[in-house]
Amino acid sequence: MRIGIADTTFSRVDMAAWAIDELEGAKGVKVERYTVPGMKDLAVAAKILVERHRCDIVLALGWVGGAKIDETCAHEANMALHAAELMTSTHILKVFIHESEERDARKLARIAQDRVRKHAQNALALLKGKTALSRDAGTGKRQGYAHAGRIA
Amino acid sequence: MRIGIADTTFSRVDMAAWAIDELEGAKGVKVERYTVPGMKDLAVAAKILVERHRCDIVLALGWVGGAKIDETCAHEANMALHAAELMTSTHILKVFIHESEERDARKLARIAQDRVRKHAQNALALLKGKTALSRDAGTGKRQGYAHAGRIA
Amino acid sequence: MRIGIADTTFSRVDMAAWAIDELEGAKGVKVERYTVPGMKDLAVAAKILVERHRCDIVLALGWVGGAKIDETCAHEANMALHAAELMTSTHILKVFIHESEERDARKLARIAQDRVRKHAQNALALLKGKTALSRDAGTGKRQGYAHAGRIA
Amino acid sequence: MRIGIADTTFSRVDMAAWAIDELEGAKGVKVERYTVPGMKDLAVAAKILVERHRCDIVLALGWVGGAKIDETCAHEANMALHAAELMTSTHILKVFIHESEERDARKLARIAQDRVRKHAQNALALLKGKTALSRDAGTGKRQGYAHAGRIA
Amino acid sequence: MRIGIADTTFSRVDMAAWAIDELEGAKGVKVERYTVPGMKDLAVAAKILVERHRCDIVLALGWVGGAKIDETCAHEANMALHAAELMTSTHILKVFIHESEERDARKLARIAQDRVRKHAQNALALLKGKTALSRDAGTGKRQGYAHAGRIA
Repeated sequence: MRIGIADTTFSRVDMAAWAIDELEGAKGVKVERYTVPGMKDLAVAAKILVERHRCDIVLALGWVGGAKIDETCAHEANMALHAAELMTSTHILKVFIHESEERDARKLARIAQDRVRKHAQNALALLKGKTALSRDAGTGKRQGYAHAGRIA
Repeated sequence: MRIGIADTTFSRVDMAAWAIDELEGAKGVKVERYTVPGMKDLAVAAKILVERHRCDIVLALGWVGGAKIDETCAHEANMALHAAELMTSTHILKVFIHESEERDARKLARIAQDRVRKHAQNALALLKGKTALSRDAGTGKRQGYAHAGRIA
Repeated sequence: MRIGIADTTFSRVDMAAWAIDELEGAKGVKVERYTVPGMKDLAVAAKILVERHRCDIVLALGWVGGAKIDETCAHEANMALHAAELMTSTHILKVFIHESEERDARKLARIAQDRVRKHAQNALALLKGKTALSRDAGTGKRQGYAHAGRIA
Repeated sequence: MRIGIADTTFSRVDMAAWAIDELEGAKGVKVERYTVPGMKDLAVAAKILVERHRCDIVLALGWVGGAKIDETCAHEANMALHAAELMTSTHILKVFIHESEERDARKLARIAQDRVRKHAQNALALLKGKTALSRDAGTGKRQGYAHAGRIA
Repeated sequence: MRIGIADTTFSRVDMAAWAIDELEGAKGVKVERYTVPGMKDLAVAAKILVERHRCDIVLALGWVGGAKIDETCAHEANMALHAAELMTSTHILKVFIHESEERDARKLARIAQDRVRKHAQNALALLKGKTALSRDAGTGKRQGYAHAGRIA
């Protein structure tokens, strides 16, 4: 199985390193990395990872600056990542960190690491089949934060 | 007939369980479930349910957190679900619960259950043909709440 | 000629009835109706009306609730209806009534009826050819309200 | 060469007349007109002008009412016009007049005429080749208003 | 290798000149320029540069006016540029300057030049392969401003 990782030079933390570390132990998994300038370049990179590098799933790792325009860009990038998924019928996990989530740099980096690692695990689960995550359905799982849990 | 159910681990209630319960009695209906991390993974899952698992209709069950970014994600997910519908010419019912709808957890769960069950019935009706719901056209049907009724 | 009518059970008035009444007198016109739960189901219904029921044009009749989320849904539905048009190279008239337009129920129903009937006539005109409406170009025609007229 | 003109009955000025007047003198240019009800019908009309009427470029002439919902519609129409362009690999110039630009009707009509005429000239230039406008690149050209000029 | 440059007459600085200057020294690189009226014409121009002029990557150089409507147009243009990328599986770098970034014209021109030149270098790097930028991943690179750097 091949897992694509698309990451950026814009990001202020090395998100791909955490993803690679998380996936390293997995059996039969090969990682293909594609680094682009910013989050608006992720969608086509993810599509190329599927089409030319035969990835079975992709982690798209984006970093969103703190200005209003950055949120608009994040929206555009996410719309395009959805389109890339639908054009390839392949999961592309949208793993975005927003600077607006947390002012403290160290806390923000911790959120980022937690989100990246958990989504790397999600990628492995999705490769196992469409009900691999069904056991956890409706349990309020969160990436970047503590799980929210069930309410009913 | 095959009805696909795409649900999430992000959701704080087991939406798929209600849908499955509602569909269980229906004759000749087989359910295919696909659990993904969050609502932004539903569109490609729904498309795969149609393409690879030959579903005739899909229920996309999404849970929207209470922050502003969650509403943006819900918008993105809904746009992508529309795209998946058009690419497959197959109905994908967008069944979303927003935490912003109701603060009280038990009331919110009740809204969720009502919406899921009614849309499961809508899925069964749509499978019967394009005029199966015409009897109820213009009658102000609501999912999650009491029906609004006609005004003219 | 076949005219498709996609309508909803969500609507609080029977929009399709007015459209059918308006089209009944037209020679050589056959109506195909498709009723769906809500406006977010209209786009794929319209596409199916074109693809499987060979409609030459479609009236998509949507009803938009009064909450902010309803306006977001209307935006999503309209984007998808545009996509369905472009995928089929067929006109799909987007006939939407917004509860926010008018608080008084009877006045709102009157707006709805006027808009539906005028757009049914627009559908008939568009079927006649690309310059059938050119005589009225730039004259400030309105559906739901009195015509605005020319300013220059 | 064929230039398509898509215009509307919603518009309060005859935008197509100015475009046709501007294009009349051009050698070897044939105009194909397509009039639709409103700006949300322009995208499919433009696509049909390219596909069935073999237009080499299209002017999409839209009029945007003064309410908030009209701006949303304009956004939807522009997104769809972009999609039509990409599906046909053909320029479709989006020539929109917003009532919010100017309260005075006569001034608004003058803005409209200036914008339509300049974009008709842009259409002619684009037909000449991809560098026909390069001489004016970065010079702050404006349609509807006086040119803004260079700042560096 | 061919690098496409799509630029506009709307821009108030000659963005393409900086890009061409930056690329001139690169070995085996041929530049193809396409000038259009405004940013909403960039997406189809970029697609044509890939399809008909066989460009391997495109720089889409856009200038965004200072009014609210200009920001909406920029959003539309960016969405369409994403779509063009996905339809061609080719990188199209979205290099936009917003007048809202800086009131002082000379400072704004300096931002523009810095952004264009750095993205021209990004284009050259992306042509070298998918890991050419990996060395700089997560280092907070910025175009138009000083690099932000790593936080973890």
